[in-house]
Amino acid sequence: MTTSTALLTADLVGVAVFAASGASAAVAKRLDLFGVVFVGFVAALGGGIFRDLVIDEVPPLAFADWRYATAAAVTAVAVFWLHPQLARLRTTVLVLDAAGLGLFTVTGTLKALDAQVPAVGACVIGMLTAIGGGLGRDLLTGEIPVVLRREIYAVAALAGSIVVAGLHGLGYAGPVPLVTAAVLIFALRLVALRRRWGAPVAPLRSPRTRGPGPDPEW
Amino acid sequence: MTTSTALLTADLVGVAVFAASGASAAVAKRLDLFGVVFVGFVAALGGGIFRDLVIDEVPPLAFADWRYATAAAVTAVAVFWLHPQLARLRTTVLVLDAAGLGLFTVTGTLKALDAQVPAVGACVIGMLTAIGGGLGRDLLTGEIPVVLRREIYAVAALAGSIVVAGLHGLGYAGPVPLVTAAVLIFALRLVALRRRWGAPVAPLRSPRTRGPGPDPEW
Amino acid sequence: MTTSTALLTADLVGVAVFAASGASAAVAKRLDLFGVVFVGFVAALGGGIFRDLVIDEVPPLAFADWRYATAAAVTAVAVFWLHPQLARLRTTVLVLDAAGLGLFTVTGTLKALDAQVPAVGACVIGMLTAIGGGLGRDLLTGEIPVVLRREIYAVAALAGSIVVAGLHGLGYAGPVPLVTAAVLIFALRLVALRRRWGAPVAPLRSPRTRGPGPDPEW
Repeated sequence: MTTSTALLTADLVGVAVFAASGASAAVAKRLDLFGVVFVGFVAALGGGIFRDLVIDEVPPLAFADWRYATAAAVTAVAVFWLHPQLARLRTTVLVLDAAGLGLFTVTGTLKALDAQVPAVGACVIGMLTAIGGGLGRDLLTGEIPVVLRREIYAVAALAGSIVVAGLHGLGYAGPVPLVTAAVLIFALRLVALRRRWGAPVAPLRSPRTRGPGPDPEW
Repeated sequence: MTTSTALLTADLVGVAVFAASGASAAVAKRLDLFGVVFVGFVAALGGGIFRDLVIDEVPPLAFADWRYATAAAVTAVAVFWLHPQLARLRTTVLVLDAAGLGLFTVTGTLKALDAQVPAVGACVIGMLTAIGGGLGRDLLTGEIPVVLRREIYAVAALAGSIVVAGLHGLGYAGPVPLVTAAVLIFALRLVALRRRWGAPVAPLRSPRTRGPGPDPEW
Repeated sequence: MTTSTALLTADLVGVAVFAASGASAAVAKRLDLFGVVFVGFVAALGGGIFRDLVIDEVPPLAFADWRYATAAAVTAVAVFWLHPQLARLRTTVLVLDAAGLGLFTVTGTLKALDAQVPAVGACVIGMLTAIGGGLGRDLLTGEIPVVLRREIYAVAALAGSIVVAGLHGLGYAGPVPLVTAAVLIFALRLVALRRRWGAPVAPLRSPRTRGPGPDPEW
């Protein structure tokens, strides 16, 4: 198996896992079969479509290579029919999702750097590649995106994208540093899940200003 | 009337019908006049803007040709003032909407094929051209998109786009096969409305796994 | 200070103010620190990213120049920690927001005109540059966008963009007419706030059709 075949395989596994998360959310919201496939498609490919639009790689890969849309659709249909059995795979899915997070962040950051986007922008694009699909999934199913509410998820992606941009800036371009960054994201995400790490939430009102006073929301 | 004039006229009628559906949803949500016009604009032109971005036809037609934005805005203002009377036109609107669905799918698929997008991607883009505006309308008015929940709507569009891509692949490029595909979508949609066809919804729990057990949603 | 430095400074102040509005909405929705920064980023830069995509200026400025993302992120973090104190700055924030509205509309309209977008489309793009971030902020926090519901906000932007396009069509290109348009938007917005002007809302049912009859929503 060549490197590019390995990368394509990994990419399609990531697409399938993200499609499963979208399809599963859609089933829980009682969407019909088309809705389940569509939300699966957006969860799997929405981040990559956004990435390709901002780096001007058109048509986006999701439309240019039929294997991406097909992988997403087949997975979503499978979830539609099999979802009660899938409940037992919860842990497997979370682990695969963490792997997808690592992979999509690293490839997204790299594609942005290759398209001459400066480092800060490339890190943001890499992170958006990985979390964009989940944002779309939550908006379509009427939820405030879960990635904005709790858990270390996007922050793990951002940390990995900074490592990729840093190594790229230092001239490291081979596969080893990239795999390192992907594994870092994967590990950070799993440890965060295990230890229930979460980002802090602001107190709605500091003790000092409690009591009559101006409305704290403006 | 030349072919291109006929096509432009049909396109603008489609824009007006979709704008009416958006404006009407916005009136029902008590949005102000600007909100009604804006949701009408998104419902009418959102799908086409997305199509033009992914096939790199910039600026999108909605911004490049003033007649599109004007048709959407004028229709939305008319709905704002006249909407109680429009209630009587419910059937007319559903029929025109089905015609718009057929037209937008066929032109969207064709434009994608002409931009060298492979067949599978072109079909998805064609369908998104037709349903994208309605998705935007529902997101802006705080609803889970109706196209994901019930009825044969996007599936009719997808069937028509596959016919367009198939005929295109076989070398048929004249207006007759395209009109056939548009009529197919139109007829499928009307029959589905008439017979209340809907796509299936997954049972939330299969009988076999009912009772104590793992959470079916992951 | 040269003109371009002045413009960059003004632009970054606009970014900071819009980021503060997004971060503040996210704090009120109990999002975590990442969510607050992300919503701040979208509120500040979402409109500009959309503008750059439709005029094909890729990668969008928000990713090409690190100062934009940094200004948004730093402001959002500051709001996260300081928001109870910021409640006292409500008036200041509304005034700065009106200034940002004027600035983003004028620069957005101009960039679209410079990219050869015809006048009507350029006005719509200019307005979307200014209101797009707020739309994204409201969608991410689960609200029907406030700009669609009440107050003169987008309409002030649209009026200013028409002035810019008109002056551009007449050949005026210097800074004076542009500043005039920005000040017009700023003043319109402040007067609307002060006098509680709002756009009209359609009655859900006209007196004539009240009583038994067809469902007014279709």
